[in-house]
Amino acid sequence: MLAFSNTRLCTILLVLFSSFFDVTAFLVSPAVKTNSWKPSSSLIQMSSTDNDEADVFVMVNGMPGPMATAAAEACLRKGLKLTPVAMTGPDIKANTIVVYDPISEKSSQVKLIPSSQKDELLAAIEGMKVSCGEKNILAIDYTHPSAVNSNAEFYVEQKLPFVMGTTGGDREKLMQGVNDAKHFAVIAPNMAKQIVAMQAALEDLAKKFPGCFSSYKMACVESHQKTKADTSGTAKAVIDSLKELSDDEFTYDDIEMIRDDEGAKDFRVPEDALKGHAFHRYTLTSEDGSTEFALEHNVAGRAIYAEGTADAVKFLAGRLRAESEGKVYSMIDVLEAGGLE
Amino acid sequence: MLAFSNTRLCTILLVLFSSFFDVTAFLVSPAVKTNSWKPSSSLIQMSSTDNDEADVFVMVNGMPGPMATAAAEACLRKGLKLTPVAMTGPDIKANTIVVYDPISEKSSQVKLIPSSQKDELLAAIEGMKVSCGEKNILAIDYTHPSAVNSNAEFYVEQKLPFVMGTTGGDREKLMQGVNDAKHFAVIAPNMAKQIVAMQAALEDLAKKFPGCFSSYKMACVESHQKTKADTSGTAKAVIDSLKELSDDEFTYDDIEMIRDDEGAKDFRVPEDALKGHAFHRYTLTSEDGSTEFALEHNVAGRAIYAEGTADAVKFLAGRLRAESEGKVYSMIDVLEAGGLE
Repeated sequence: MLAFSNTRLCTILLVLFSSFFDVTAFLVSPAVKTNSWKPSSSLIQMSSTDNDEADVFVMVNGMPGPMATAAAEACLRKGLKLTPVAMTGPDIKANTIVVYDPISEKSSQVKLIPSSQKDELLAAIEGMKVSCGEKNILAIDYTHPSAVNSNAEFYVEQKLPFVMGTTGGDREKLMQGVNDAKHFAVIAPNMAKQIVAMQAALEDLAKKFPGCFSSYKMACVESHQKTKADTSGTAKAVIDSLKELSDDEFTYDDIEMIRDDEGAKDFRVPEDALKGHAFHRYTLTSEDGSTEFALEHNVAGRAIYAEGTADAVKFLAGRLRAESEGKVYSMIDVLEAGGLE
Repeated sequence: MLAFSNTRLCTILLVLFSSFFDVTAFLVSPAVKTNSWKPSSSLIQMSSTDNDEADVFVMVNGMPGPMATAAAEACLRKGLKLTPVAMTGPDIKANTIVVYDPISEKSSQVKLIPSSQKDELLAAIEGMKVSCGEKNILAIDYTHPSAVNSNAEFYVEQKLPFVMGTTGGDREKLMQGVNDAKHFAVIAPNMAKQIVAMQAALEDLAKKFPGCFSSYKMACVESHQKTKADTSGTAKAVIDSLKELSDDEFTYDDIEMIRDDEGAKDFRVPEDALKGHAFHRYTLTSEDGSTEFALEHNVAGRAIYAEGTADAVKFLAGRLRAESEGKVYSMIDVLEAGGLE
């Protein structure tokens, strides 16, 4: 019962808070911004009790970029709430968008504030923390490679646990900074949980039964949108495991890449996914051709990455409640926690 | 050098031995048979040194049955030798066949003696053991379900390590009898090593990351020759693991069975495999249909089972040299030993 009341209170406060920003974003002075949402001590008292997943609000940074928006939709679909304020690119004008998930039919209004308006963002984060509880605000970052390190530093400073879906930047510095600060974060180059699971299964198989496909011939065909010039990184990683299973002299150069629409359609890529897909088929064929094993992972659009990101947020919210000190978690940690949607 | 000389001697003796049987199988008296190949003590001296794999002779029992014959071909292909005498069905007339492996182009002549002529078989086994060394003769059994238990007892009595590829019989009695006798054997319901590995990988994945494909829909299509009435047992086992990964309400009844030639051809079964194949495709598809994972194992003919059987023989020959006491090994043990062809 307390959980429900608390969530309700938090939602009401956030709606008020959001409305305030919609109207005043470009008008209020820093002094007003940073102090405007300091609630009374009785409110702090109530909101300081951190409850379950239903209380978790996610600040999805990087909208209206397609990956961030897909992640926000996945959050709604998986029962998480969106904060009414989030960060957008430094050169984008502040504006309010509506995130709508067609599957769950849930929607949420989000005010986007450019990362250049730091004071306003700080005020928003402070206000949201106070009204919802320190452990109930987590961030997702799908911004830009050039912002990876500075954003991570910002999250650490603001004590804002985060899931970093943005690739690039100085990864070593990123990992070390977050770990040194004992900050809670999930950082992974591939948020597609099921693909990570599949890769882990292949790696385990290769460790357990090396050479069990000896004398089998390998093949790999992968199709991506025309604009992707390089070979699939996932394909390369999978090939690394398959090479432990087979003794075939296969190299990355032997991967067959499809980058044209006709080829993609022949490879069963749906028409509406020609501009954004990642289809892969690997085969291991016995010397005499009588036996074939095949593995496929065929992704159209961004849903799998978006849902993995939302799962990572749920996982991180759980860690935040169970552990006293944070660290960088991987998608393998998310998978091992299991039982997530 | 000793290994080579010993093998050579053994081969010469076996050729002589084989020729003897070809000519005299129906003429010699039991007394002659059992004593005819007791070599001189100097020969025993030489042959008692058990060497490496190149010295291993396999008694493939159950020829000219297709599965036993395929196993014998696989043995030749994988560098093993065949004993010049093997056991066939009790009602089959003694005769000599030539086993020929088209891939390695190796061939070997084998005299088949009906299981009803026990004395003759005993004499042959004794002779082969003496000439090649106790640890260099191993048996493969692809006979008949009704012969499983009696054949296993026969192998135990004759101290003949064996790989039991025949299914059926009283399995519990089989396992217990062999284990109690501390006899060396590989007994497995499925000798297709790579399929066993794939199943183990799925089981491990399900244990490690249960529910990681939650909300994904399962599907399974399998095609077998028209004469197979029941659902694929392998499909059922794989489905059991997939159900741990997904929360879909899938049952065995949802497996789509193809048992007609046209359907099989549409499922990419080659024309010449319509009468003997096991093709399987499993898919896990995300709720919104944007992501699909697929796994296929497509087997035409018997080669994969035959080669797994030959690998099991090699494994067992190794155990025989490394361990002082035997037991029943599984295909998982064979896989774990790794590094086999």
